[in-house]
Amino acid sequence: MIKVTVWNEYRHEQEEERISKVYPKVIHSAIAEFLGTNEDIKVTTATLYDENNQLRENAGITDELLADTDVMIWWGHIAHGQVPDEIAIKVKEAVLAGMGIIFLHSAHHSKPFKLLMGTTCNLGWRESDDKERLWILDHNHPIMAGFEDKRFIELEGEETYSEPFGIPDPDKLLMIGWYNGGEVFRSACCWRRENGKIFYFQPGHESYPTFYNKDVQRIITNAVRWVNPQCRIKLECPWIARLEEK
Amino acid sequence: MIKVTVWNEYRHEQEEERISKVYPKVIHSAIAEFLGTNEDIKVTTATLYDENNQLRENAGITDELLADTDVMIWWGHIAHGQVPDEIAIKVKEAVLAGMGIIFLHSAHHSKPFKLLMGTTCNLGWRESDDKERLWILDHNHPIMAGFEDKRFIELEGEETYSEPFGIPDPDKLLMIGWYNGGEVFRSACCWRRENGKIFYFQPGHESYPTFYNKDVQRIITNAVRWVNPQCRIKLECPWIARLEEK
Amino acid sequence: MIKVTVWNEYRHEQEEERISKVYPKVIHSAIAEFLGTNEDIKVTTATLYDENNQLRENAGITDELLADTDVMIWWGHIAHGQVPDEIAIKVKEAVLAGMGIIFLHSAHHSKPFKLLMGTTCNLGWRESDDKERLWILDHNHPIMAGFEDKRFIELEGEETYSEPFGIPDPDKLLMIGWYNGGEVFRSACCWRRENGKIFYFQPGHESYPTFYNKDVQRIITNAVRWVNPQCRIKLECPWIARLEEK
Amino acid sequence: MIKVTVWNEYRHEQEEERISKVYPKVIHSAIAEFLGTNEDIKVTTATLYDENNQLRENAGITDELLADTDVMIWWGHIAHGQVPDEIAIKVKEAVLAGMGIIFLHSAHHSKPFKLLMGTTCNLGWRESDDKERLWILDHNHPIMAGFEDKRFIELEGEETYSEPFGIPDPDKLLMIGWYNGGEVFRSACCWRRENGKIFYFQPGHESYPTFYNKDVQRIITNAVRWVNPQCRIKLECPWIARLEEK
Repeated sequence: MIKVTVWNEYRHEQEEERISKVYPKVIHSAIAEFLGTNEDIKVTTATLYDENNQLRENAGITDELLADTDVMIWWGHIAHGQVPDEIAIKVKEAVLAGMGIIFLHSAHHSKPFKLLMGTTCNLGWRESDDKERLWILDHNHPIMAGFEDKRFIELEGEETYSEPFGIPDPDKLLMIGWYNGGEVFRSACCWRRENGKIFYFQPGHESYPTFYNKDVQRIITNAVRWVNPQCRIKLECPWIARLEEK
Repeated sequence: MIKVTVWNEYRHEQEEERISKVYPKVIHSAIAEFLGTNEDIKVTTATLYDENNQLRENAGITDELLADTDVMIWWGHIAHGQVPDEIAIKVKEAVLAGMGIIFLHSAHHSKPFKLLMGTTCNLGWRESDDKERLWILDHNHPIMAGFEDKRFIELEGEETYSEPFGIPDPDKLLMIGWYNGGEVFRSACCWRRENGKIFYFQPGHESYPTFYNKDVQRIITNAVRWVNPQCRIKLECPWIARLEEK
Repeated sequence: MIKVTVWNEYRHEQEEERISKVYPKVIHSAIAEFLGTNEDIKVTTATLYDENNQLRENAGITDELLADTDVMIWWGHIAHGQVPDEIAIKVKEAVLAGMGIIFLHSAHHSKPFKLLMGTTCNLGWRESDDKERLWILDHNHPIMAGFEDKRFIELEGEETYSEPFGIPDPDKLLMIGWYNGGEVFRSACCWRRENGKIFYFQPGHESYPTFYNKDVQRIITNAVRWVNPQCRIKLECPWIARLEEK
Repeated sequence: MIKVTVWNEYRHEQEEERISKVYPKVIHSAIAEFLGTNEDIKVTTATLYDENNQLRENAGITDELLADTDVMIWWGHIAHGQVPDEIAIKVKEAVLAGMGIIFLHSAHHSKPFKLLMGTTCNLGWRESDDKERLWILDHNHPIMAGFEDKRFIELEGEETYSEPFGIPDPDKLLMIGWYNGGEVFRSACCWRRENGKIFYFQPGHESYPTFYNKDVQRIITNAVRWVNPQCRIKLECPWIARLEEK
């Protein structure tokens, strides 16, 4: 059983009616719902703001939650700055020790992602209802399971993101996004950082029903299984330290 | 002084009037001309067919030529099969020993490229006068010198190539091509194979005046300098062999 | 159920008494035996020479065998040249279409490995009963499952291999070998080539009982599961070809 | 002319007589001296402590210095914690904008290195006068210029570092260290982070005369030329931002 925690800043859905119409069940619940249909996945949610629109202490993330999470999914956009630095650092350290993590869409500018990447994670963007095609580069990667007969998946509308994307070159580039406005973007990227696996997936702007798309759901579900660690290693484990004397 | 040999199968220009109109000076001379304007580059050409449209022995490639070439540029399309296997193997071995090589456009299916990659090098394609934009992923790579103020370069017309491209993941992906027909392609790729550097660059279909484009010329010129070896190592050099006894 | 074919040239065990003493059940059977104890693995063997020391046609590899093999394991040393080129090419093509493959020890110079790598695969070597330590670089990779509490594994005796190793840089370097004679070697390397996963593992010289070592057995077993494809894609599948017209 | 700033915490040389005997001219001056013999390199030094053993403000690093530095070399060991966070962040940002940087030996735990890597950068270590051999993996990389005829370089004594080394897998692994005590280490590693190139080089413990070694000097000199940027890009440059409207 893979224990997944879906984290959402939970701002747009409470602040903007046009967004709450797209995600009446809020983004974290939309994600939790399709993940929860899998027998090998057990989902919890955590949010920066609570359902009364109040900022939670510690961004809703406790040490116990991190210790009990195999895979974290992160959605944030306008409230990155409200996540305390020490919480972002704890998330980073949990990943280095083995916790898998999936950053969705605008989480490219979240504190944990930027700490793990070591770069600005800047990109170009435009909100203009572009159509997006995500081209598959490697059909035999576990995250692409189920797409053997497809060259690409298509989204009728998404926010446009464009290169240059200020990231370390991915250990594995899985998909490249094409937008009819003229842009391309490295839309599905894998990295390992010490014992933890990281997946960045670009679709998921709050104003589009992207998380209801079956292809997107399958990719996120596959990614949960891929980032799921086979082990958690304490970063202070005895063999990462002074060597025995000869 | 970098000694460059531009190799061309030299078929379209002799067989098709519409192509000879685009490249009245033939493709290898068009490339040799802009390279030759650089003080640090000395250019030779070699061709599969001679100027009387006769197939040359050994694809026009001798051992002396290979030994005297720092960087080879390869353009081929409809006559890949007429390059003898033993010549393709000699080119591969020269690369492994240190000779730099640049494969242009349809050279993705040339014998030396496929031997060096170890894969099919298959791709999707369509001839439909698509516009192409080549997005830059890394502005500080030597091959991108001179493009510091640009996000992308643009070609009014090119043959469309599309993913999946059957190559080993590049050691370095420099540009991604966007086509208005809906496709993307890894258009500028770097690999090292033993002592030799390899650059694949997708633009350059025979029916478009791509090699007259100043941006394309700059990229190929930069690439010549980048693949140029600092040394040639004999693959039978004494230290790649049985170790001294203890 | 993963269908594994263990291929062995089967020369040393029939030609040299000192080797048949180390592997009285022959190398392919030694490997098949420990793999066969796993419920998810079904093992077959194939050999270049038969049990009467006669060279088999087609190196013992038929189209049917390749089509029915998920994962091939390759052991060869002194008879690489007796494997017909067309068989080596068929093995390569099966890998590009998705068949997983594991090359052991001196298979670094086998034809299929060299075809897939595109390089000489040369290295330095010495037979002097060196002790080897294989250091683990990534404890959370599936091939390292079960070694969470170890920095390295140790072999009392192995043939010494040394850098430079003439391979494309691995997509993933998992272990580095240390020899008390003073050498290092990239001993566990992963590559993807189109739809197929490749694992090279350096231990396994015929004169040492390496394949009886429990750590070695675990790594090879883990590797079988990692290279096992989730799908086989025809290299001529309709989407690797001319694009639909716009 | 490449403008190099050699930064040193400058503690051991003022605090420990046994170290000041090894480096009577102090570490930063020892490095500056051999670099300064090159016509294309202009060297400055900067230190955390001044020559009166007083902690400098801002670790001796001003905005002007960073703007006027093409390549920074960093040596630190026991005073990493005394470098202010905001200075470490400024160094990181200068790298992302294009400044080249070389981290030597125990700088693996310096703040700028850890910020750029995003990992713990932990390793195993032992001080026992081990002999080290650094094996060369790629003889045609610019940092290896001048070593065409060598398999490895050798240091009579160095601090032992061992895997696992808690770094992102290098974009390019150039050398692997072998220690007669039984360890291996990724001793020469290259990364790109946005517009900046990073080189980590493991030799250089304060108690050994490593920086007087001609091979070490050549590698550091080569590395200065390799990390030297061809351009500096403002991280807020207009094309890393909102795209033009269609």
